[in-house]
Amino acid sequence: MATLFKDVLMLDGEQDRARRGHLLVSKGRIESVLDISETPPSADKVVAGHGRMAVIPGFVNAHGHAAMMLLRGLGEEAPLMEWLQEKIWPVEEKLTPEHIYWGTSAAIMEMLGTGTTCFADMYFEMDRVAEAALGAGIRAALCRGITAGVPGKIERSLKENLELAETWHGREGLLTVQIGPHAPYTVPLEAMKTITASAREKGLGIQFHFLETEWERSYLRDELKKTPQAYLEETGLLSAGTVLAHAVWLMPSEAESMDLSQVTLVHNPCSNMKLGSGVMPLHEWLERDVSVALGTDGASSNNRLDMWGEMRAAALLHKGVTRDPVAVSALDVLRMATYEGARALGFARKGMLREGWMADLVLVDLDKSHYVGVNEENLAMFLVYAGSSSDVTGTMVNGRWLYRNGDYPTMDRDEILQKVREAREAITK
Amino acid sequence: MATLFKDVLMLDGEQDRARRGHLLVSKGRIESVLDISETPPSADKVVAGHGRMAVIPGFVNAHGHAAMMLLRGLGEEAPLMEWLQEKIWPVEEKLTPEHIYWGTSAAIMEMLGTGTTCFADMYFEMDRVAEAALGAGIRAALCRGITAGVPGKIERSLKENLELAETWHGREGLLTVQIGPHAPYTVPLEAMKTITASAREKGLGIQFHFLETEWERSYLRDELKKTPQAYLEETGLLSAGTVLAHAVWLMPSEAESMDLSQVTLVHNPCSNMKLGSGVMPLHEWLERDVSVALGTDGASSNNRLDMWGEMRAAALLHKGVTRDPVAVSALDVLRMATYEGARALGFARKGMLREGWMADLVLVDLDKSHYVGVNEENLAMFLVYAGSSSDVTGTMVNGRWLYRNGDYPTMDRDEILQKVREAREAITK
Repeated sequence: MATLFKDVLMLDGEQDRARRGHLLVSKGRIESVLDISETPPSADKVVAGHGRMAVIPGFVNAHGHAAMMLLRGLGEEAPLMEWLQEKIWPVEEKLTPEHIYWGTSAAIMEMLGTGTTCFADMYFEMDRVAEAALGAGIRAALCRGITAGVPGKIERSLKENLELAETWHGREGLLTVQIGPHAPYTVPLEAMKTITASAREKGLGIQFHFLETEWERSYLRDELKKTPQAYLEETGLLSAGTVLAHAVWLMPSEAESMDLSQVTLVHNPCSNMKLGSGVMPLHEWLERDVSVALGTDGASSNNRLDMWGEMRAAALLHKGVTRDPVAVSALDVLRMATYEGARALGFARKGMLREGWMADLVLVDLDKSHYVGVNEENLAMFLVYAGSSSDVTGTMVNGRWLYRNGDYPTMDRDEILQKVREAREAITK
Repeated sequence: MATLFKDVLMLDGEQDRARRGHLLVSKGRIESVLDISETPPSADKVVAGHGRMAVIPGFVNAHGHAAMMLLRGLGEEAPLMEWLQEKIWPVEEKLTPEHIYWGTSAAIMEMLGTGTTCFADMYFEMDRVAEAALGAGIRAALCRGITAGVPGKIERSLKENLELAETWHGREGLLTVQIGPHAPYTVPLEAMKTITASAREKGLGIQFHFLETEWERSYLRDELKKTPQAYLEETGLLSAGTVLAHAVWLMPSEAESMDLSQVTLVHNPCSNMKLGSGVMPLHEWLERDVSVALGTDGASSNNRLDMWGEMRAAALLHKGVTRDPVAVSALDVLRMATYEGARALGFARKGMLREGWMADLVLVDLDKSHYVGVNEENLAMFLVYAGSSSDVTGTMVNGRWLYRNGDYPTMDRDEILQKVREAREAITK
């Protein structure tokens, strides 16, 4: 089925300027992108924008833990390690595969409703996450979080992660699988080497929490006797397709002698602020042309799964902290929130509005007071600084509407809400 | 007409814990607040919450320039003084009284739709602003921005401001008027003394931009040869009911010997970040029990007029910058966004859910995935960290719905949009 977006403003993160015209979607791909002066082709379905709708690439939430929406609000206003050890981990132990399925489904609903078309997920019971994602029709990049614990736990988790890849990697073109070692302080150094070697052997990417807090830097220095560079090089993380989540305390200056070409950092500004972890020097990474994507992290440390909030936070925070109103442009964060995440998670031809690229799109209603004055020149800035997720009227993955005007055609909202309420009851009583 | 909110969660910024029960509104006031165990009284209109709606006090946007929504997006990503002098001021000169009326009306619509029941406004053609506010039925605290310029400009503006007070102060219980000297660098020191004396004589409060940028500190030091304390004391600003907007560069340590009991600071976190002005040390002011309210500033430096965004920014930013996850609690920002603003702007009995207080209320839909787990203990944190303005289903001022489920009963949305589009065209061509 073909869908025509007629007379809309079109923008992706590589364009200095939006284009007014028509966009035709067919067979899950962007079939053509036409100028307003060209005759729009016919299609089964037409979305008439009248110049007051925008079409942008769907957001890619490049780091998170979807089912943690079940833990939202537990242990608020506490530091990271206390929050993890006292509030989160004990409750996580009560989660069943069913809980994970419904929690993930609810998180997917929140993400679709705010324009996200692909999400990275590091958690456990990942088969259920894969089922939830495929059921909804959203793209996802999955990994099994690997942490030490009882003897054999790392090996078992790695095995699960490899089986996850075997079963789901590439499925329906919607899923990719990464290997998911949790963090330097939860996975011993030798095990990390085994894990990265295993990822390389299978040709899989890696999701990894790295230097989220300053404490982690001192852990590397005092316990592992490693600089961040030595750690990344010796474990083999630099030579795999690696996503380093957070990276708040990785310093651009010390990265000068490292080869970061295979690495994408994921900026999670709201989570990092909320947990008091600090502020990543994003503007310096952008100046050095290091790839940076954007993510929400789990809903228990954000507490939204809304990439608009993340874009706005990223665009504003660094201006304030560096006292430089030109630091981190609206276009920078739009590209981070779309193309950079897709590329990092192994989705080719996703995140730009180009012919033959994936028809993963967000439809934005510009017929609102806060968009008065928007035009081809300033659309990125209007979206990032004045827009919000409540402007999203449709989210399309693979050319198929998964969210449209408040409805979720592939999901049963009431059932999901009911099931997550029951799960929340069960894990907190 | 009486309205009963039946079985809702009720919370204001002074309550550690929300209360589940009923709230009766009559004759513009909160008539009674009852426990869930009590029998709800009868009323003409009943809003049945089924325990899945929250009622909170309406937000008070304590510093802004409403009609600047017409200038939104002009001169993005530029420093404050360059932005003002090259992008904003030249366009402002083209604004007509009609433009101001319609621009303010559109801003009021944006504010009502996001739960704001009262806004401070410093601008010009303020009679038109008063008419727009009264026409919509929203509360407002108005002042004429006073700046030097051609000879006699200050005197003329002060006269206009005093006439504004004469005409509108106290009108329908909806309006207050302050005196609005713009900033230390736009009003000479001697004129400031005259202005504050004049405010004191008339019993009016003052709105004033103070130390928004670090440059302003050096201006005080190098041009006026004053410390911030000497400036505030000598101009008489400490002894009037004064609102100091921004105050990014006023240091809590140097305020130790000042009497700030008549002063409220207004924190504008998003505007301060966006313009690269810096980060106010909010947590220190809160520790010192100095009154701090919250505001968006004008839509040309934010670019939203959404107090939910401001609450979230205030609650997250300071945790990140101070690396303290308990700095600035959700309850702190809720109180700043409601009661503190109301008190500062001269509205008594506004901003709390108490019998006899103003029925300026926001109705919040909690029947959403991102509120699963909300209860009496954690409502403030769910609202601030997980909520957003798209959860607002109703905004009531004086017991009257001004926004309800997408509609604005007192305003003509289409006409306003049309008029602001025309105004935008006129000032930017």
